Amino acid sequence: MSVLIVGSIALDDIKTPVEEHANLLGGSASYSAVAASFSSPVNLVGIVGEDFPAEHVELFEKRSIDLAGLQRVPGQTFRWSGEYLWDLNTRETRSVALNVFEHFTPTLPDSYKETPIILLANIAPDLQHHVLDQVKLPRFVIADTMDLWINIAKERLIELLSRVHMLILNDGEARQLTGLTSLIKAGRKLQELGPRYVAVKKGEHGCLLFGDDGQFFSCPAFPLEDIHDPTGAGDTFAGGLAGYLAKSGETEITFSQIKQAVVHGSVLASFNVEAFSLERLKTLTHEQIAERKALFHRISSLD
Amino acid sequence: MSVLIVGSIALDDIKTPVEEHANLLGGSASYSAVAASFSSPVNLVGIVGEDFPAEHVELFEKRSIDLAGLQRVPGQTFRWSGEYLWDLNTRETRSVALNVFEHFTPTLPDSYKETPIILLANIAPDLQHHVLDQVKLPRFVIADTMDLWINIAKERLIELLSRVHMLILNDGEARQLTGLTSLIKAGRKLQELGPRYVAVKKGEHGCLLFGDDGQFFSCPAFPLEDIHDPTGAGDTFAGGLAGYLAKSGETEITFSQIKQAVVHGSVLASFNVEAFSLERLKTLTHEQIAERKALFHRISSLD
Repeated sequence: MSVLIVGSIALDDIKTPVEEHANLLGGSASYSAVAASFSSPVNLVGIVGEDFPAEHVELFEKRSIDLAGLQRVPGQTFRWSGEYLWDLNTRETRSVALNVFEHFTPTLPDSYKETPIILLANIAPDLQHHVLDQVKLPRFVIADTMDLWINIAKERLIELLSRVHMLILNDGEARQLTGLTSLIKAGRKLQELGPRYVAVKKGEHGCLLFGDDGQFFSCPAFPLEDIHDPTGAGDTFAGGLAGYLAKSGETEITFSQIKQAVVHGSVLASFNVEAFSLERLKTLTHEQIAERKALFHRISSLD
Repeated sequence: MSVLIVGSIALDDIKTPVEEHANLLGGSASYSAVAASFSSPVNLVGIVGEDFPAEHVELFEKRSIDLAGLQRVPGQTFRWSGEYLWDLNTRETRSVALNVFEHFTPTLPDSYKETPIILLANIAPDLQHHVLDQVKLPRFVIADTMDLWINIAKERLIELLSRVHMLILNDGEARQLTGLTSLIKAGRKLQELGPRYVAVKKGEHGCLLFGDDGQFFSCPAFPLEDIHDPTGAGDTFAGGLAGYLAKSGETEITFSQIKQAVVHGSVLASFNVEAFSLERLKTLTHEQIAERKALFHRISSLD
């Protein structure tokens, strides 16, 4: 099955304590789409300007990502510039230029409207709603979000929750959205607001997955020796997860499958942070994914 | 087999955002000894003053902890007062009064000198050395420590590392002691300084265990719904781990056993934080431990 991914496509300038790079491919849809493409066909919806480098389009094409939904318009591509502090856990945004993204309307080509799995990657809730207004009977809808939307569009975000099967957000966002400090309580509270499944990401510390009937999975982190650029880890996780579910095919999506999708997404994210931008995903192989998944099982097993 | 535990015994005043309690039983040896007592006989070495309440001694006795090494001397018991900030992860020490602890010399009764498993709970490295000077051919020596000793007694702590089989410390301490930000690199570096095994605790996020020949275990956290008082979680973990190894008996201590000991210690620590001081450990049963261990396996399994 295919997965439809809508989100931002950006050119990033990123500084860490040891390195600095400019004009990198970034944005939630870029990371998510490439990550998903390891498991399933991807229909991409996004917008770029005239300055968007051909090499990035070629990357999408090389990953067999359908670009019928990629809008190329006059003007400059969305730009983001950020800096990570010494421990790579704290990020400061240095500048944002929305450019062509400011007036983005995610219009779906007809060929996309029956995509069974939908990932509403991190963009404004209004745009996420607009995508759902266009699709026909999707099998599984996943929404990602960020603190910005909780701050400026909380009501629309809460409305969205009753339209999605699964919500992905990080620990701080889960606390902010529910007003609860306990992540277990926050996860359950978010389920009450709509989504059958909630994944609360804990950055480098893994993820909590909440399912039906009190089903619960505490996904450990894959411990990394060297993190070069944490940008896009969450988007890669979400994309990997969505792609994995699409690959699972026509059978009903179960908690057990979503667990495996969370593990898959975590493994892809663990690769993504090993290099700047999507550089590591570019060279990643299925064999490397399988190897790391086996290692992840081995080092995390309580037995 | 028995485990010898030496450390501090304190009376704590503890404030959290929702509760405040005074004159609580505390100290590294108190938590460690009671935790270990669920698995094995314990020989306790510590010091208290005349003000030390009889009920705390009775708790130790009820847990069949050998008190031949408990010094009761004129003066006041060591007192510590601390406050936790809203997320319970940040702790501020409000006051410390060493009292009788200031001139503590951990002298071992003859009956303790051949205890096979030794836990040097968190006290000054000089005192930890002094204990090792008195014991005869221990099978397994575990040392816990804290940032204070890295700040004021780093050299003696480093000397200690070549005298112990296992070091337990938290993530911040591992980084501070090695100057390395990567916990994987820090753990390996610490092994080079002496201990065959190193456990790097990540607070509520689990623990990394480093063993022989690159053996490695990323122990996930047991996710807690309600944390009431994080005090003593690390001491409970270390005591539970040491007791578990003592219980394992005469066979050689393997990486696999230490893994199980880490899981056991994590489960005991998860109970300890559910109430102030040692209140939860007081009522804890073997059945509850077994139940939570089974749950821990179930919710953390990648399969």
